[in-house]
Amino acid sequence: MVPQAFLNALQNLYPPERISTRQAILEQHARDQSAHPPHLPDLVVWPLTTEEVSQTLQLAQQHRVPVTPWGAGTSIEGNPIPIHGGLVMDFSRMDRILAIHEEDFQVTVQPGVLYKDMNKVLARYGLFFAPDPGANASIGGMLANNAAGIRTVKYGATRDNVLALEVVLADGRVIHTGSRSVKQSSGYDLTHLFVGSEGTLGVITQATLKLAPIPAHVSAAVARFPTVADAAAAVFEIIGAGLEPTALELLDATAMRVLNTDPDIPHFPEQPTLFMEFASSHQAALEDTLDQVRELCAEHYAQGFDTGVGRQERARIWRARHHLFEAHVRYFAGQQFLVGDAAVPISRYPELIARTAALMEKMGLVGSLLGHAGDGNIHTIVFYPPDDPQARDRALAFNDAFVELALELEGTSTGEHGVGLGKRKFMAREHGLALDVMRQLKHTLDPYHILNPGKVLPE
Amino acid sequence: MVPQAFLNALQNLYPPERISTRQAILEQHARDQSAHPPHLPDLVVWPLTTEEVSQTLQLAQQHRVPVTPWGAGTSIEGNPIPIHGGLVMDFSRMDRILAIHEEDFQVTVQPGVLYKDMNKVLARYGLFFAPDPGANASIGGMLANNAAGIRTVKYGATRDNVLALEVVLADGRVIHTGSRSVKQSSGYDLTHLFVGSEGTLGVITQATLKLAPIPAHVSAAVARFPTVADAAAAVFEIIGAGLEPTALELLDATAMRVLNTDPDIPHFPEQPTLFMEFASSHQAALEDTLDQVRELCAEHYAQGFDTGVGRQERARIWRARHHLFEAHVRYFAGQQFLVGDAAVPISRYPELIARTAALMEKMGLVGSLLGHAGDGNIHTIVFYPPDDPQARDRALAFNDAFVELALELEGTSTGEHGVGLGKRKFMAREHGLALDVMRQLKHTLDPYHILNPGKVLPE
Repeated sequence: MVPQAFLNALQNLYPPERISTRQAILEQHARDQSAHPPHLPDLVVWPLTTEEVSQTLQLAQQHRVPVTPWGAGTSIEGNPIPIHGGLVMDFSRMDRILAIHEEDFQVTVQPGVLYKDMNKVLARYGLFFAPDPGANASIGGMLANNAAGIRTVKYGATRDNVLALEVVLADGRVIHTGSRSVKQSSGYDLTHLFVGSEGTLGVITQATLKLAPIPAHVSAAVARFPTVADAAAAVFEIIGAGLEPTALELLDATAMRVLNTDPDIPHFPEQPTLFMEFASSHQAALEDTLDQVRELCAEHYAQGFDTGVGRQERARIWRARHHLFEAHVRYFAGQQFLVGDAAVPISRYPELIARTAALMEKMGLVGSLLGHAGDGNIHTIVFYPPDDPQARDRALAFNDAFVELALELEGTSTGEHGVGLGKRKFMAREHGLALDVMRQLKHTLDPYHILNPGKVLPE
Repeated sequence: MVPQAFLNALQNLYPPERISTRQAILEQHARDQSAHPPHLPDLVVWPLTTEEVSQTLQLAQQHRVPVTPWGAGTSIEGNPIPIHGGLVMDFSRMDRILAIHEEDFQVTVQPGVLYKDMNKVLARYGLFFAPDPGANASIGGMLANNAAGIRTVKYGATRDNVLALEVVLADGRVIHTGSRSVKQSSGYDLTHLFVGSEGTLGVITQATLKLAPIPAHVSAAVARFPTVADAAAAVFEIIGAGLEPTALELLDATAMRVLNTDPDIPHFPEQPTLFMEFASSHQAALEDTLDQVRELCAEHYAQGFDTGVGRQERARIWRARHHLFEAHVRYFAGQQFLVGDAAVPISRYPELIARTAALMEKMGLVGSLLGHAGDGNIHTIVFYPPDDPQARDRALAFNDAFVELALELEGTSTGEHGVGLGKRKFMAREHGLALDVMRQLKHTLDPYHILNPGKVLPE
């Protein structure tokens, strides 16, 4: 339990409707979308202003109470689970779009705004924030985890699309990093340090994001392949040819079977498949690109190369792709699951895919391979019966081997889900002595380790 | 002078040909290309390996000797001037290209390799490192200062094109940040923290850079305008239309007069001028783009819009543009000069340009406005007689007012030259409390302040 004096002080700061210790509320803030075990916080507050966040953190530091910022709870590596209890700071009521800088392709928002809601508003201006995690994540959560998604192959991850932040430090100091200038060489790059730090270095209360114009001409293509290795080889060729897809997704046969459960999309053959999208300001350029892609796919034994996908059908397919994780959970109802996330240089992608698929088969695991192939990222989802500890151990061993393989191939243990709880054990292996530097920075900025303790850095 | 014990230890570490206290050598390492007063180091070493760098820093920390890393000396804000003396570590002999990852569009290099030399090698693979500072800077220097240039409008600055670093810390620890995966969400982003820190947080001994394919079709256009304000307004429209130039440079009438001294290029009318370049995989798309650009320029009273610039002529113009700073120094021979560098959001660019030009005129200063307009960056160069302290004060006052204006317009005090010596005085104004955080990070990583002391952070 948190100290009574802390509770009293918070009750003075927050009106009753914005502070809660109700069991149902605590349970809502005890888990994300991962399989990591839930843990209840002691209480939840809903700040409305930066000033409230600052005062709350001052109190929390004074009383040494853990504070975990909370977005939409859509993460899948346990990133916001308050494993040491304490206070959850729910940002869902700090959800305003503060300014749309239409002429600069920028938007300034509070962290609680939801990604999809924000992009609906921006669409009126012909603009969008490109990193697309699929889930209706909060911008604060996307910043914290450096989220990415199907558009990252072209537009970069969240980190690549942030210009300025307002951050509240553990001791309550409010700082502003970066500026609205797209070009900045002034002092240390604090912006990129806070992005992806999962709320362990500071709490983001405002962000200015880079936007992109919605492209004039878009074409999609779907190609299926005899094996995932063939599909991955085609991915490598497409990227290597400099063709710059705006999306390039790989789904294996199992993932296609799950995709087919979506009633809104056409039935696809249950074979390894690439879903591709290309954009251009110019229709003829787009057609040239698709011709090249078709050839490259054919060289890797593509069976069927369908470019006759209209705008509405495309939207339905991407929606189904976005919900594919939840669709898996439904399809394998009653099973436990473990989600993997690793990324490698694109030249090593075919090997990563081939060896991961072989490993999954060899270990007798049921699951899918699916991922943002264009940027070398792949996800595994493996399922196992809840009452089978041996199967669980096999799933964990598989995930370990998968991460080791990605590191061996000069990649990373997490392409986009962040470290959270599940990837902490790989930090020493991946970062070596640099992990000590990360610990030093953590200790400098959060000397009492009150900010989302237990995340990112192994304890 | 450095302690004798330190000198003795270094003489054990370095063979005589790689350690020097000769006056001529010290003088070569006392100044960059700026007007900041030179300051001699006490000695210079030329390391060959990371291990030597590590041992050197261990000794320097032990003896509390300032260490300034040295690239090619082409910076223009005093960034590598060893104002506290001590040791200069010259990286010109750690200049190897270690690996060309052609299929991943990446290269791994030592910091001493020169930008232009590296790109000559990469051209054989159809690839190039895009941030183009003009000068034949070293990659280490570009990383330290987060250098940028005419290609940044399309491809980003140096910081945006770095995947992984090897860094030696002040205490000699060698760390590796990032990975060769283009997608990374694993732990704190140390890579971006070291890039742009001007050697004050650590010494970069190796870097893996992102490359871009050399575009298939390129077109250039030159347009001149009645005023710089009109030219800047056209820039804003071109960027706002999402036309993505690969270069978009603004030169005022004085800069054009200086440019015309180059014997290799055609004579241009001495009026405010935009030099533009567009690239595409498709010729027809390129022609469409140029038609739109022509219209947008015409709306802002462009006089002449010339797209008949061939490949060789284009190369000559860019070469002249690259040497324009040195050309100014020659043109105004015998004068002192002061170079400005600020950047703002593109929507504020027309105002920045109009007010800066008016200010220069009002203050009776002789000089040029020239810059990477497409990313909101502008440079000022003002000249004054060496024996006129009042003129010098006017030049300094102008630069202060120019930076204040950029900050007022939501910009930054330095778009690409870095803080070095000249911009330290603006750090508190620009960063507020965030400057304290920068100081904390500096103290954490370099507790004895031996790394390039006196730079970035005001003393």
